[in-house]
Amino acid sequence: MSEAWLSKVNWAEDGLVTAIAQDASTGRVLMVAWMNREALKLTWQKNEAVYWSRSRKKLWHKGEESGHVQKVKSIRLDCDGDVIHLLVEQQGGIACHTGRESCFYRLLEKGKWVETDAVLKSPEEIYKNKLEPL
Amino acid sequence: MSEAWLSKVNWAEDGLVTAIAQDASTGRVLMVAWMNREALKLTWQKNEAVYWSRSRKKLWHKGEESGHVQKVKSIRLDCDGDVIHLLVEQQGGIACHTGRESCFYRLLEKGKWVETDAVLKSPEEIYKNKLEPL
Repeated sequence: MSEAWLSKVNWAEDGLVTAIAQDASTGRVLMVAWMNREALKLTWQKNEAVYWSRSRKKLWHKGEESGHVQKVKSIRLDCDGDVIHLLVEQQGGIACHTGRESCFYRLLEKGKWVETDAVLKSPEEIYKNKLEPL
Repeated sequence: MSEAWLSKVNWAEDGLVTAIAQDASTGRVLMVAWMNREALKLTWQKNEAVYWSRSRKKLWHKGEESGHVQKVKSIRLDCDGDVIHLLVEQQGGIACHTGRESCFYRLLEKGKWVETDAVLKSPEEIYKNKLEPL
């Protein structure tokens, strides 16, 4: 199948674009990450969010360790072609690695960042299966 | 007043962070832009979105030319501290410079980007007051 649509994206010099995931049911913005061409193509093929991890320098199939997969309902591109918007069904109701629904859990109130979201599941619990058995 | 909250933001080497504006009434993600420290401080002080224009290399009080000001309802910070989320009341119902409600007006359908949003006001009409009188 033609991949002309991938070439319409304005990849930055480092080959990446910004990607936003928004929850389809609650409307909440869950997280912001990065995609390269392969990540976007895989996201489209799998209907599950695949990002590029800048820290680990590899493809990151969201939920591969935590189980918190994002089922993709739609993929949008912005006017400048350098931001991708995903509407997703967030499996487990947790997008953030801290165990919260959204990564945007800090609200500015009277000049201070206040945590407004509860930790739904501790990171230790989320990532317990990530360790190799002894 | 203390600006300690500004120092909790993880500014990138270029002094910027990503900023997302979401419509408080419709829940739609409207646009993504950039902020430096001054832009975020002004956004907080004015309760109106102020970004840093990377192309024009200057502060950009959103709506300064178009009238499409974004009244800020809340300011949030993500877990990594490098993305700002604004919940806004979008004046004029138009965030995009193309005259559409949202910059994310292209939807991926069967391997093609399809425009789903109508132009509510032509850019010529929006920016007609931007030109200096002859």
